[in-house]
Amino acid sequence: MPCRTTDELNELVHEAKKYTDGGKVADYIPALAKANPEELSVAIFHDDGSCVSAGDIQQKLTLQSVSKVLTLALALIDYGEEAVFDKVGYEPTGDPFNSIVKLEFSPSKPLNPMINAGALAVTHMIKGNDSDERFDRILSFIQELAGNSSIGYSQEVAKSEYETSDLNRALCYFLRQHGVIDEDVEELLKVYTKQCAIEMDCLDLARIGCVFAMDGLEPVTNRRLIPAHVARLCKTFMVTCGMYNASGEFAVRVGIPAKSGVSGGIMGSVPNRFGIGILGPALDEKGNSIGGIKLLERMSAKYNMSMF
Amino acid sequence: MPCRTTDELNELVHEAKKYTDGGKVADYIPALAKANPEELSVAIFHDDGSCVSAGDIQQKLTLQSVSKVLTLALALIDYGEEAVFDKVGYEPTGDPFNSIVKLEFSPSKPLNPMINAGALAVTHMIKGNDSDERFDRILSFIQELAGNSSIGYSQEVAKSEYETSDLNRALCYFLRQHGVIDEDVEELLKVYTKQCAIEMDCLDLARIGCVFAMDGLEPVTNRRLIPAHVARLCKTFMVTCGMYNASGEFAVRVGIPAKSGVSGGIMGSVPNRFGIGILGPALDEKGNSIGGIKLLERMSAKYNMSMF
Amino acid sequence: MPCRTTDELNELVHEAKKYTDGGKVADYIPALAKANPEELSVAIFHDDGSCVSAGDIQQKLTLQSVSKVLTLALALIDYGEEAVFDKVGYEPTGDPFNSIVKLEFSPSKPLNPMINAGALAVTHMIKGNDSDERFDRILSFIQELAGNSSIGYSQEVAKSEYETSDLNRALCYFLRQHGVIDEDVEELLKVYTKQCAIEMDCLDLARIGCVFAMDGLEPVTNRRLIPAHVARLCKTFMVTCGMYNASGEFAVRVGIPAKSGVSGGIMGSVPNRFGIGILGPALDEKGNSIGGIKLLERMSAKYNMSMF
Amino acid sequence: MPCRTTDELNELVHEAKKYTDGGKVADYIPALAKANPEELSVAIFHDDGSCVSAGDIQQKLTLQSVSKVLTLALALIDYGEEAVFDKVGYEPTGDPFNSIVKLEFSPSKPLNPMINAGALAVTHMIKGNDSDERFDRILSFIQELAGNSSIGYSQEVAKSEYETSDLNRALCYFLRQHGVIDEDVEELLKVYTKQCAIEMDCLDLARIGCVFAMDGLEPVTNRRLIPAHVARLCKTFMVTCGMYNASGEFAVRVGIPAKSGVSGGIMGSVPNRFGIGILGPALDEKGNSIGGIKLLERMSAKYNMSMF
Repeated sequence: MPCRTTDELNELVHEAKKYTDGGKVADYIPALAKANPEELSVAIFHDDGSCVSAGDIQQKLTLQSVSKVLTLALALIDYGEEAVFDKVGYEPTGDPFNSIVKLEFSPSKPLNPMINAGALAVTHMIKGNDSDERFDRILSFIQELAGNSSIGYSQEVAKSEYETSDLNRALCYFLRQHGVIDEDVEELLKVYTKQCAIEMDCLDLARIGCVFAMDGLEPVTNRRLIPAHVARLCKTFMVTCGMYNASGEFAVRVGIPAKSGVSGGIMGSVPNRFGIGILGPALDEKGNSIGGIKLLERMSAKYNMSMF
Repeated sequence: MPCRTTDELNELVHEAKKYTDGGKVADYIPALAKANPEELSVAIFHDDGSCVSAGDIQQKLTLQSVSKVLTLALALIDYGEEAVFDKVGYEPTGDPFNSIVKLEFSPSKPLNPMINAGALAVTHMIKGNDSDERFDRILSFIQELAGNSSIGYSQEVAKSEYETSDLNRALCYFLRQHGVIDEDVEELLKVYTKQCAIEMDCLDLARIGCVFAMDGLEPVTNRRLIPAHVARLCKTFMVTCGMYNASGEFAVRVGIPAKSGVSGGIMGSVPNRFGIGILGPALDEKGNSIGGIKLLERMSAKYNMSMF
Repeated sequence: MPCRTTDELNELVHEAKKYTDGGKVADYIPALAKANPEELSVAIFHDDGSCVSAGDIQQKLTLQSVSKVLTLALALIDYGEEAVFDKVGYEPTGDPFNSIVKLEFSPSKPLNPMINAGALAVTHMIKGNDSDERFDRILSFIQELAGNSSIGYSQEVAKSEYETSDLNRALCYFLRQHGVIDEDVEELLKVYTKQCAIEMDCLDLARIGCVFAMDGLEPVTNRRLIPAHVARLCKTFMVTCGMYNASGEFAVRVGIPAKSGVSGGIMGSVPNRFGIGILGPALDEKGNSIGGIKLLERMSAKYNMSMF
Repeated sequence: MPCRTTDELNELVHEAKKYTDGGKVADYIPALAKANPEELSVAIFHDDGSCVSAGDIQQKLTLQSVSKVLTLALALIDYGEEAVFDKVGYEPTGDPFNSIVKLEFSPSKPLNPMINAGALAVTHMIKGNDSDERFDRILSFIQELAGNSSIGYSQEVAKSEYETSDLNRALCYFLRQHGVIDEDVEELLKVYTKQCAIEMDCLDLARIGCVFAMDGLEPVTNRRLIPAHVARLCKTFMVTCGMYNASGEFAVRVGIPAKSGVSGGIMGSVPNRFGIGILGPALDEKGNSIGGIKLLERMSAKYNMSMF
């Protein structure tokens, strides 16, 4: 049974919160470093539109790597599976999230769309006449998925990330050297850093998770927002590569499609049941929200969430 | 709907068979090299005990890497999750199946139980007073899972593999150097090469697949053969690492827990529905049955098998 | 005895020329691809100023990687050993010249100043108010070493390399990410690509080699152009890393400090005796002039050139 | 001028000794762990047979990796250059001495004869009917080089290393898998661990170093013990790979052919002048005698020892 009462969820958050001590907030950009490491909040969005939440649900988070799933969906809608997987691979990697260039590449292309090199190749494919138009398409798509047209992005975070993007710049020039991308690198980075800085709260995130849980249908209205095969493909990558190089352990312990970001956000999709949005800025050494993972482990056991 | 008619299955096999041209049989040991590359057979075992098959279903196969899932289940039953994952990790690797030692190790232990280093660490844990007793336990467990006490092993294949095991020997000494195993390496290799040489037909394999599909219950009788959490854990590894470094692509294209071996065998489990046993000795460059994969892609589309 | 007669040298070139069939010219930029693969020319410059040559000695070559030794000397003069080796390491690498980023880095800095990442870090150190001034300093230094103020650079080659520099751009952003460099990457690449495009003939190259052979003294005049310890340090790197990942074999077969470039140039220094300049555009698979190496093997045997 | 007075040498040792604090003795086998980390002794053996020493010159050391140079010389005498380099490569590697298997291999053979994998391939080539005979040949050769027939080996160290050889066992099985060796691995390890346990004092070591310094001639008598081209080839490897992955820096700072071992021994050869034997059990993080390296740096500066 899915959680329907706030009390129950509050208790689970309370328990999981103890573990936030062991983590630390991402500090590579000032905007992320300001987050409160003790925070932990969660929202659950059911397919009937009802929702439950716990913690400071007003608090906003930037999507960071969570956005990789959403641009993947958009690129698949725009170009189809064959074109996208001509540019990125399908395979998970056991390497850490801060692994340097080689480890993100098979001989000719990025290993998968969830690592930075692969996500940059995917964003490269987003259609539009210039970087503004391309970003607007991504933002509109995300607003539609969340059913919330007020979603925007943090200029402060985008600017800060753009200015500290040398590793991603290196990846981009590698991609260009290998013919995976052929555009101006700075333009691509502008789109990519804005996409990472898109800002929402846990409820928005849970609602997007619910769209994936419902194979692309909008909760309540059942309007199709994403083709079913695209939604399912995205969930497959969330299972095999969604939690950096802890994806294998997460599949064992939690067993749901999920994607994390260094802001401490996690978007989860429990197939045919509900979406989950979590914010817990204290990260473990693999880059995942330490409280968020503990919370999902407890939720998975209690609500029998695992697909496996 | 699962397949219930032989005609339908025959047609799918007929189509998939065309692709066997592009593969070649494993040739590193003589016994495997003798297999017929054009062969392709399949059995489906439903949870009610009914079964359907196509191709030369009498033909036997040795388990090879398929056995890794079964010893993992046995070790988990014997020692529990914590003890097992103290010795092997959870994470998939994007590296090829013939990758050399380094690529199978994180700093301190094998990356996962589906690669050779990890499987050797798991077999090391199987209880017994000597290598004969330990192998007998594995064999009995497998006979029970298949409901077939006549299952044995090929002495020819076991002997041949034992004699050409230098790569696995190197892995074992690495494991011992790192304190992952502490037994006599030759004893361990005796158990391991026999386990890889366990011989059965596709129907046996499908029936074992069905036990995992039913979370550890014996089909028909519903007797528990494997604890549910162990069966589910094994299926998780089949999804994330079951098809060598094509596991990510297989998850996208087929979407079921499955494990392949270099004999051309594939064991599949469609949760709550049926088990699949396939034999197709022609392998693709990643070591998976080329006809078997094509067949599973068609079956997945036709019978809506994907978990995702 | 060093070679003093043209006939002898002509014969050695004639023999070595047969091997040029087995190589091919660098084709990654158009300007290099136009070179004649059958060409092989050599000049020897003795410490008394006398010289001998064979082949089409008028033919010019661009320095390419040969320039790495010369900027290393200049950076050592400007900043001293400690500052330079704070930015690059000392160790040779067994990896191929086209190895990707990871292989050029130890945890924190480029492995040595002869690989691209290390050479870029060295050029970063060259003093000057802007990229033009910095390049002018490099060019003046090289003109002085060669005793030839007419040496310039090929604008065509520099432009062509600058436009196809994505791999070096990736390396630069890596360097900046790791704090090894902190300047504008395009400015650095402008200096670096011009430095690689500096153009001279074999006699110029042999004369520069002779300066190093004489521990930094100008031949004939004995005026000091490079401090002795700097010249010796450069020769050490020429021995351990001068011929890409064939340096070890070159040390065994030829045994002299030498540096090659993908234009097919090789600069050699026979300590206290003479300098060598070679042009042979056909390269072996490791990126060294195939005819040049064969010629040096024969010269080393005949003139007892090896230091070992 | 070479050092001829004990006072001078005593002073250099005294200075270098201060650095032994920063290192620690090898502790992977008990016999080595017992060494005194504060010890530092040195002997110089001139080509005229005169010698100077400082420190506790009576103290014995086991050769460990220093033996790799000597078996390389013997294998080259037995089989010639072509046969030996069919089994091992020429190239240095920037990887640490404790790097695992992959890093010691190029696609098909060990990178060079100074790393463990390469040294095992070399010892594999030593002629003899059984492991005893092969070891006796190595020992006799070394006794002859040192002009000391009382040199033996430490049974305690050999036994201890044999029993903790799992990493080398793993390397051996790798070598056998790749067809580099084809003998019984335990026999090879018996020879290899005894060779590493050959015991002598610094004076013996200095005398062997002097033989190499004199291109293979016995000091005083000028009798040829090693063909000149073999002695020179060995010295080349001592320069490019003799000090583990500090060889590049050692070439810059000291500039002589030298080989170190984890016992804290270093054998040096100053071409045409003298041999050096050092014992200083405290090692730096790369596995070289920390006091020994400091001492050689001072000696190199004072006596102008560098080849470069």
